[in-house]
Amino acid sequence: MKQNFSLKPPFFEIGPKSYLYGEDVLALAKAADAASEKYDVDVIFTTPIVDIRRVADNTKRLFVFAPHMDSLRPGRGLADILPESLVSAGAVGVMLNHVERPLSLSALAQTVRRADEVGLATIVCTDTISEAAAVAYFKPNIIVAEPSELIGTGTTSDEEYVRRSIGAVKSVDPDIYVLQGAGISKGEDVYKVIFAGAEATGTSSGVIKAKDRAAMVDEMIGAVRKAWDDRKK
Amino acid sequence: MKQNFSLKPPFFEIGPKSYLYGEDVLALAKAADAASEKYDVDVIFTTPIVDIRRVADNTKRLFVFAPHMDSLRPGRGLADILPESLVSAGAVGVMLNHVERPLSLSALAQTVRRADEVGLATIVCTDTISEAAAVAYFKPNIIVAEPSELIGTGTTSDEEYVRRSIGAVKSVDPDIYVLQGAGISKGEDVYKVIFAGAEATGTSSGVIKAKDRAAMVDEMIGAVRKAWDDRKK
Amino acid sequence: MKQNFSLKPPFFEIGPKSYLYGEDVLALAKAADAASEKYDVDVIFTTPIVDIRRVADNTKRLFVFAPHMDSLRPGRGLADILPESLVSAGAVGVMLNHVERPLSLSALAQTVRRADEVGLATIVCTDTISEAAAVAYFKPNIIVAEPSELIGTGTTSDEEYVRRSIGAVKSVDPDIYVLQGAGISKGEDVYKVIFAGAEATGTSSGVIKAKDRAAMVDEMIGAVRKAWDDRKK
Amino acid sequence: MKQNFSLKPPFFEIGPKSYLYGEDVLALAKAADAASEKYDVDVIFTTPIVDIRRVADNTKRLFVFAPHMDSLRPGRGLADILPESLVSAGAVGVMLNHVERPLSLSALAQTVRRADEVGLATIVCTDTISEAAAVAYFKPNIIVAEPSELIGTGTTSDEEYVRRSIGAVKSVDPDIYVLQGAGISKGEDVYKVIFAGAEATGTSSGVIKAKDRAAMVDEMIGAVRKAWDDRKK
Repeated sequence: MKQNFSLKPPFFEIGPKSYLYGEDVLALAKAADAASEKYDVDVIFTTPIVDIRRVADNTKRLFVFAPHMDSLRPGRGLADILPESLVSAGAVGVMLNHVERPLSLSALAQTVRRADEVGLATIVCTDTISEAAAVAYFKPNIIVAEPSELIGTGTTSDEEYVRRSIGAVKSVDPDIYVLQGAGISKGEDVYKVIFAGAEATGTSSGVIKAKDRAAMVDEMIGAVRKAWDDRKK
Repeated sequence: MKQNFSLKPPFFEIGPKSYLYGEDVLALAKAADAASEKYDVDVIFTTPIVDIRRVADNTKRLFVFAPHMDSLRPGRGLADILPESLVSAGAVGVMLNHVERPLSLSALAQTVRRADEVGLATIVCTDTISEAAAVAYFKPNIIVAEPSELIGTGTTSDEEYVRRSIGAVKSVDPDIYVLQGAGISKGEDVYKVIFAGAEATGTSSGVIKAKDRAAMVDEMIGAVRKAWDDRKK
Repeated sequence: MKQNFSLKPPFFEIGPKSYLYGEDVLALAKAADAASEKYDVDVIFTTPIVDIRRVADNTKRLFVFAPHMDSLRPGRGLADILPESLVSAGAVGVMLNHVERPLSLSALAQTVRRADEVGLATIVCTDTISEAAAVAYFKPNIIVAEPSELIGTGTTSDEEYVRRSIGAVKSVDPDIYVLQGAGISKGEDVYKVIFAGAEATGTSSGVIKAKDRAAMVDEMIGAVRKAWDDRKK
Repeated sequence: MKQNFSLKPPFFEIGPKSYLYGEDVLALAKAADAASEKYDVDVIFTTPIVDIRRVADNTKRLFVFAPHMDSLRPGRGLADILPESLVSAGAVGVMLNHVERPLSLSALAQTVRRADEVGLATIVCTDTISEAAAVAYFKPNIIVAEPSELIGTGTTSDEEYVRRSIGAVKSVDPDIYVLQGAGISKGEDVYKVIFAGAEATGTSSGVIKAKDRAAMVDEMIGAVRKAWDDRKK
């Protein structure tokens, strides 16, 4: 777990994956940066490796995360993603174990430790509540609890799931944040999951497929702020 | 095979792998760029993904290659290396099937085709003469023929090996260039292999471990030019 | 290439993959063995690892092949498939590089050499004619030329494809046999492809999904014999 | 977790890995079977896939485990290890996530569930105490806690490590057994670790490299019994 990590709930994660490249990545990052400032909501932007430096250089408030890294140390390793190279390019964190880039149990544990070593924050993806609890033993900064049963159902995580996944993680380590994934396609979805008790949520295709991506980013991040404030009333 | 690819023998390939990161990558790229111009020798710089755009933006004559890419098309794929994203960042080619990032036979064939499609040149690594001949059927621009038996022996490819590997590749497709790998640690090694008939050679640790990397790059690329000119006498 | 390999065209390959297990594997093997004898057609039975010894012990004329092996030598390697262990269990050959178990270019080359070393015959799967030609440089006993464009179309390889794929392989090494894959679901399909000039063909789901598997095996292997004999008339 | 699993502490695990094949595997299994009976100690024999049926058919008291399996269901999947096929061959359990066959977090969770479904017991390997605690959330029958720092040092797990690893696992689920790995090369090593409080231990190279394997198996399994009995005094 990166120490003194300034990110605070409520926060939001956006990942263009391989849907976008070149100027489109930068444009989305700038829109997210602007919305982050407008609504005072921390935003993680999971940036394709090739675009990390450019996004970091051209945004102010975004938390630029890499979508993956390897645990090697400087040396051989062609095409590996070296932790130090991410820091050098301006990344402040790294996503690990996404379903499209799974890690073995042992590699995951080691890579979180390497991130700690170089000062990168970590967000680890999991599929079920028992996986989320298991990963908490590796002490990443954030765990994504994605109820895979819900993916593609158009149903967002309900209050019960939100409560149970947060409980499972925090019973192992209360300092880990929990991000609720799955099924976010508009501001209303974001509002619901944050209002239901989530500390964070995020999207990938929900923003990418919007006709006006900048407007959708604004709508979603605005919804994070509103739901969070409404919860406190 | 990328069409109208302007690279011509004799040429040289340099790959910092994961030995270097940040400013050190850029400094090595600039040294290679300067030597390329000074000696009129084409140089492929196999650049860590995270540094591709910066190296492309800050050099003039280098052929900026990625160390790997995936064959996916724009869409899902977190942490995959999208071909279009490399083009957009300024890469003109991609290395495939390095021993530290092997591809299945079928993925290799497909990825060469994807490179052709987006206009990236391809350099494919092989271990033996029969692998080099096999890969020639996929029509990359360049094949690295690395006699793995010689690695670490301090012996460079001899004339016989150079002749046989070039013959094997060109008997399948005479338009493919052959780069002789293995054992290059100083200018003299470069001279020998080019003089023995090679169209190209390259190095990774040979440059990285030099006390003065820029001087070693100059020495090696100068040796390419000298050996090539001496061969014609 | 295994020397003195007694298998001869026309031959037929059957693979239960993971569709069957236990008694069903043995029953299918026995049916294949009986049909092999009845029609005097050599049959490769690509047997799940766990069933190799039992199938080898309970059949007479089948060529028992493993569906995969690793290239390691006796030593560490939990759950690896050791070449010597296959020979010891009664296998006479091994399938490599099936689309469901792809090998890197280099691992494929090495594993064919390991098979040669322990005396196992090799059948290597490929996706396109250029892959088939490439693999011929590694000198397996048999190459499967499976026009992936045809899979699932219900169309068997036509005469033109059969001729071209055999030509591509034999131009590299005339001693390699070529098996035409794709789209075999009944005896008539087998007849067509063998009559069109193939040396061999095979099936997996075509037999598994038949109501009466033993009858379908008999029908298909009978069709191999008939087509082969009719070609000579 | 397999229900009604009859194995009870103290127990011992032996894995020939790829060191042995053919008759040597069977001979070792028979020696382990005899010692299991002689000392009334349950013994897991982690058997190469190809030998599972033969070992199960020729031993009485051994717990025959597979060294790996895949989570697929009957269907496609060439060279995958189908859970149902292991049951059919006589296996009663499966080892998962050995360092030589690592699984992704998610595949590990799924494969334990598949084992539960077909009635196979599970033994999951881990590298550190935090990994052992994490894996406990997936509820396998047994967790191997192998302090990787000790491997190859000739030092067996000390009392402190034994106590902490058992505590970490049982705090998540008290029904999971903990096997202490690493560094067992003679009966005395076995005695020490069991006497220090372990429920189980095991070996691979320690038995394989012994001049007289059957004698070493007898010595080690005898040591399990003696240490366990001495602990109760």
